Amino acid sequence: MEKKLVKTLREAIVLSGLRDGMSVSFHHHLRNGDFTLSAVMEEIADLGIKDLTLNASSLFDTHQSLEAHIENRVIKKINTNYMSQGLGHRISEGIMEEAVEFRTHGGRPRDISLGITPIDVAFIAAPASDAAGNCSGKYGPSACGSLGYAIPDAMYAKKVIVITDHLMPYPLTDCSIPEIYVDYVVQVPAIGDPRGIVSGTTRITRDPVGLLMAETAVEVIRHSGLLKDGFSFQTGAGGATLAAAKFLQDHMLRENIRGSFASGGITGYLVDMLESGCFEKLMDVQCFDLKAVESIRKNPAHHEISAMQYASPAAKSAVVDHLDVVLLGATEVDTDFNVNVHTDSSGRIMGGSGGHSDTAAGARLSMIIAPLFRARLPIVCDRVQCISTPGKDVDVLITQRGVAVNPKNEELILRLRDARIPVVDIHELKYMAEKLTGVPQRKQRTGRTVANVIYRDGTMIDQIKSVK
Amino acid sequence: MEKKLVKTLREAIVLSGLRDGMSVSFHHHLRNGDFTLSAVMEEIADLGIKDLTLNASSLFDTHQSLEAHIENRVIKKINTNYMSQGLGHRISEGIMEEAVEFRTHGGRPRDISLGITPIDVAFIAAPASDAAGNCSGKYGPSACGSLGYAIPDAMYAKKVIVITDHLMPYPLTDCSIPEIYVDYVVQVPAIGDPRGIVSGTTRITRDPVGLLMAETAVEVIRHSGLLKDGFSFQTGAGGATLAAAKFLQDHMLRENIRGSFASGGITGYLVDMLESGCFEKLMDVQCFDLKAVESIRKNPAHHEISAMQYASPAAKSAVVDHLDVVLLGATEVDTDFNVNVHTDSSGRIMGGSGGHSDTAAGARLSMIIAPLFRARLPIVCDRVQCISTPGKDVDVLITQRGVAVNPKNEELILRLRDARIPVVDIHELKYMAEKLTGVPQRKQRTGRTVANVIYRDGTMIDQIKSVK
Repeated sequence: MEKKLVKTLREAIVLSGLRDGMSVSFHHHLRNGDFTLSAVMEEIADLGIKDLTLNASSLFDTHQSLEAHIENRVIKKINTNYMSQGLGHRISEGIMEEAVEFRTHGGRPRDISLGITPIDVAFIAAPASDAAGNCSGKYGPSACGSLGYAIPDAMYAKKVIVITDHLMPYPLTDCSIPEIYVDYVVQVPAIGDPRGIVSGTTRITRDPVGLLMAETAVEVIRHSGLLKDGFSFQTGAGGATLAAAKFLQDHMLRENIRGSFASGGITGYLVDMLESGCFEKLMDVQCFDLKAVESIRKNPAHHEISAMQYASPAAKSAVVDHLDVVLLGATEVDTDFNVNVHTDSSGRIMGGSGGHSDTAAGARLSMIIAPLFRARLPIVCDRVQCISTPGKDVDVLITQRGVAVNPKNEELILRLRDARIPVVDIHELKYMAEKLTGVPQRKQRTGRTVANVIYRDGTMIDQIKSVK
Repeated sequence: MEKKLVKTLREAIVLSGLRDGMSVSFHHHLRNGDFTLSAVMEEIADLGIKDLTLNASSLFDTHQSLEAHIENRVIKKINTNYMSQGLGHRISEGIMEEAVEFRTHGGRPRDISLGITPIDVAFIAAPASDAAGNCSGKYGPSACGSLGYAIPDAMYAKKVIVITDHLMPYPLTDCSIPEIYVDYVVQVPAIGDPRGIVSGTTRITRDPVGLLMAETAVEVIRHSGLLKDGFSFQTGAGGATLAAAKFLQDHMLRENIRGSFASGGITGYLVDMLESGCFEKLMDVQCFDLKAVESIRKNPAHHEISAMQYASPAAKSAVVDHLDVVLLGATEVDTDFNVNVHTDSSGRIMGGSGGHSDTAAGARLSMIIAPLFRARLPIVCDRVQCISTPGKDVDVLITQRGVAVNPKNEELILRLRDARIPVVDIHELKYMAEKLTGVPQRKQRTGRTVANVIYRDGTMIDQIKSVK
């Protein structure tokens, strides 16, 4: 077992046989606190290895050093599910020759498991590991909770390198990834900065517009016919969706409704809902805050799932397929209910699907919460700059000025009208916003393609063009 | 999710697309209480499907109905790791045209994962499952504990059918096999007879010869240099090896030695050792008794492992690679330390490797406990009837008349001599036995090959010939 322990990152990279043109992978559970991706790329660059494909479940501003590795041709191509604006804007400016491939949190493990995006060397940043590579996100100074997105990488990569700052005695049994998949283990002083890994707590909005939308969202859920014993739910970590979770909790407790599970990226608010009996289980692919990390470590009802089990369309079934309701955000929604979460209104990359289109496809009721306008720009438009989630998978748009329901949901429209919820046509929302902000000038994008957006089933759903 | 639930076994088999010439697999955690293998084969025969390969982790006397399916050509070939004597004797008589392939508990998942023995349809007898196929051995009226041997089947089979008598609400999170691998779920009245699934308790021997050998075994472990904090251990469920576990526990408690883990098939004796602090963890691929089932359900330190993690040579490392000491049995041992656990002394099949050669290969010290003779037949011979575990992987043979050490272990011989343990040449043990029993007449086996014994690395290590 000691044979897997190597002294330095560099030694592990050399032993892995990494060569020009290969593919390396990283997961994003350490979020904006991650040290490992930059440290590994630094060593790789120093070894003179070029033309790599970087397959990362998400990229954050802390990974800005990638820009230099792109310029030096260490990285030739990027596959990712999300890219924050620091790197995103640069990609939009056209710094890469090859287009970025955006996937979803379910599409990424699908394509890894099917061999469409093979990984030569997976780097697993592990908050705890034993010397054989049994590793976990639950323990150690850099604890991040679930390692769900890293599991398919470990299972399918040719070589797997675990990087840890907390070596535990063999066997580490409460592990995310078992030793059977791990080739090398490297101990480093720190895999991340705990302040960046998880926020202290995620916070609900105090903005009255956000609170109004959250209340409306809960009204829609209440009257959808889905909110009863066995109810299942997912929500993002945005301020308004968190507020909706809180209001939903109040309602479920008042009405004594016992749901089955909540899933996805888990926050302290969902932990509260578990502990107060709103749900039997949490299905956790990623922890967003310290309370979630503490909970997944201690509470057996708070369960880690792999990205495959979360959302892969190649799985025989996945958790998203069992969802009743998901609450999601948007940067733009068009009158066909297509949603953009990849670019800002000027078309520059500042996000990505993550699990947006996976949960929208799986849930019986997918709800978008978004204000009518942001920074004097309407949310609803004729055609989104980028289709992240197709309108066929979106059921409802909640704004502060009314609720638009996808016309395919005839029964839901009747239910909401009966409940006196202000249902409006989505074109009307667009009109209301434009009356207040004016009609924004939208440029036709004519630049070259800087990113392809791959839907969860492997088909290309849209392309993102360069922005000067 | 309800889409996976089908009403009958027959419907599931039809939906799976099973056709002539395909391969079906079964696991053996329900042991001699299993109802599912016979019930499934009955339906398959009734559907007129022929020429199947049966890949079963082990076969017991309760599966005697297989004989009829072999005669009717429903089953053309058998791959298994163990076969009890009911079917074994019939195979030895030559009822099958194709030779049985015996593998080990580690070699079977190796060959499944490498595609050498592909599985078309895996049948998973699950003591508990939800409607999506998240299933567990820990709950329900037929609880058997670990489902470790079934995990590779579920992961690699083209179609997976879960058969359960205890449907639980979605999501069953403490599961052995997640929904991502499962195609169909069938509820039946009972998957097995609890009296046959696990014995009430496994029992240590009362035979003075067995107790003497057990004491000697513990003396050898004590003086091997391996028995110190961090010690790891595996033992079978035979009477003498269980007695050795008990004596080892007494010694470890007296000397305040804290081991790291015990592994393998788990008995109540190992649970006692866990609970009394002799070990930090149990790594459990199969539960042998009710106390083990109770423990794996309740104690997080009692950990389920897959057959891959237990012993697969295709895994990047496995639990057996970390073992210090394993105690094993034998039907014959030859003067080159080769061990037979497949046939009786007349050459008829009545067993199989199971994890014998996996643990012998992995452990730093592999010890065989066997009496000098059984039923007036010496245990030690010039050449075993069948090589189950090669002599290179066997370190010590413990008998009631002395301890034979494989000559390659020079340091161990010195250590044991220093401790005044009666070390004897293995030829001397043979001579002692023959002096008491006479030299047995051994027939040259000239029949046709009825079974090939495949070593854990995929090479053929021996062949078993027919016996009239």
